[in-house]
Amino acid sequence: MSLLVTGSIGIDTVEAPWGKVEDALGGSGVYFACAASFFGPVRLVGVVGGDCPEEFLRPLRENPRIDLSGLEVRSGSKTFRWHGRYHADVNRRDTVSVDLNVLGEAGPKVPPAFRDSRYVFLANSHPQLQMELLSQLGSPSVVAADTMDLWIRNERPALVSLIERLDGLVLNDSEAKELTGLPNVIQAGAAIARMVRRFVVIKKGEHGSLLFVDGKVFTLPGYPSDRVVDPTGAGDCFAGAMMGYLASVGRLSPATLRKAIAYGTVTASLELEDFSVNRLLAASREEIDRRLADLRRMVRF
Amino acid sequence: MSLLVTGSIGIDTVEAPWGKVEDALGGSGVYFACAASFFGPVRLVGVVGGDCPEEFLRPLRENPRIDLSGLEVRSGSKTFRWHGRYHADVNRRDTVSVDLNVLGEAGPKVPPAFRDSRYVFLANSHPQLQMELLSQLGSPSVVAADTMDLWIRNERPALVSLIERLDGLVLNDSEAKELTGLPNVIQAGAAIARMVRRFVVIKKGEHGSLLFVDGKVFTLPGYPSDRVVDPTGAGDCFAGAMMGYLASVGRLSPATLRKAIAYGTVTASLELEDFSVNRLLAASREEIDRRLADLRRMVRF
Repeated sequence: MSLLVTGSIGIDTVEAPWGKVEDALGGSGVYFACAASFFGPVRLVGVVGGDCPEEFLRPLRENPRIDLSGLEVRSGSKTFRWHGRYHADVNRRDTVSVDLNVLGEAGPKVPPAFRDSRYVFLANSHPQLQMELLSQLGSPSVVAADTMDLWIRNERPALVSLIERLDGLVLNDSEAKELTGLPNVIQAGAAIARMVRRFVVIKKGEHGSLLFVDGKVFTLPGYPSDRVVDPTGAGDCFAGAMMGYLASVGRLSPATLRKAIAYGTVTASLELEDFSVNRLLAASREEIDRRLADLRRMVRF
Repeated sequence: MSLLVTGSIGIDTVEAPWGKVEDALGGSGVYFACAASFFGPVRLVGVVGGDCPEEFLRPLRENPRIDLSGLEVRSGSKTFRWHGRYHADVNRRDTVSVDLNVLGEAGPKVPPAFRDSRYVFLANSHPQLQMELLSQLGSPSVVAADTMDLWIRNERPALVSLIERLDGLVLNDSEAKELTGLPNVIQAGAAIARMVRRFVVIKKGEHGSLLFVDGKVFTLPGYPSDRVVDPTGAGDCFAGAMMGYLASVGRLSPATLRKAIAYGTVTASLELEDFSVNRLLAASREEIDRRLADLRRMVRF
């Protein structure tokens, strides 16, 4: 099934005690597309400024499974930039600077050739923009989205309207608690599952994830990673692999959803082993499948 | 195989926004023994003061699988007391007061009839005391222990000496990081696994656990609990069910250890559904086994 993602394309600078990259390829749409491409073709809708060097997007252009015809280059604008700094404990991160630039302007357009997309993922952005993008699509089979604490706090009515139109929502545990006002994450997930059409995935970073579907809950631990270089984009990779797998099987059953979050888990665990999308560029589907088999062995009892 | 636990017996007062119990049965040895008793007989070594009402220990005395002949009643002393208060988010807890009382005196003695115990668990206490208790035992097959941040910070040499004599160590993720100085919990677990004889279990509360054995890592998520009344003692229940299961099979293979931490996970998930040991007293082995089957289904993909 065709898969489309709308998300950011950014120029990232990431510092950590063990290294640094400057002006590296980043953004939710980029991480998502790279991860999803292991499972099938993916259409990327996003916008960059005229300052974005052609060379910069090469890893995307060279991937035959990523269709960039929905990439808008807005010549008078500047590309989104983010600069973050990780602590020795990578669970702690400071944002040094963020320049929305072109992401503060009107959103990109979904090209006519993309309007028949069956599986759609709206990566985190203003829920109004997510809704606008969704309205440009025909009648997709499965629409899922990510969100963030900022919209939960400041744009709740728009976010709730969006959530009611979603088949699936992917969000962090702290966001699930904030959205519902429930301090118990299982109660929060179950409550959000009653707002969406089908499923909710709660991401807990290194602690794994929870899946709520058909009134049931499933859970997986994180893949035990002893080499974490740069967790930027891990959540987008999780969603990319998850949706990529779902689109590849074209079915949204509890069993396919469980396997999808397992693929999300292991693909994200690869991603964080290097800066930017470097580790994903070096990875293969075989490597992801080996890690999936590892994870299956690890949770067997 | 015979199982012995050394640990505290306490009079607990627990407050939460949804209820309160005063002067309830608690303590690491108590929670451990109640949980272990679902899997086989357990010998409890501990000490209370003369103020401890006979009625108070009835749940232990009425359990035919808990052997209390190692319980010392020190008439001139007072029983250990703890008073804690949980927030609406039960992951946050304040200690209102703690009175060591008899736990600040000399430790209990292991009765001669208990010296042949094959499986031994030294619940958290001063590592010097844990070592003294261990030295009173013959030659147990498997010795495991719990510890806490206080001893890691203030009694490191004694703790390290103890750890080197252990087959297994059970500790929290923050403690594992503190013990090793490694911010990555997988690296920390692997490093501690090189200090003990056989295995390390890192508990992550609602996020599950990690098992390090034979150079490999295994992991399980927490059991998704939407009803958390009082998590006091959940870690001791985890250890009790884990050791109870291991003693019942009498084998320390990676497969039995994995099943043991699964039993620890689900038994702890029952325990936290009520104050004190109330939920454990109402539970059955069948209920634990049903929850184990639930957990197995939840992690299957």
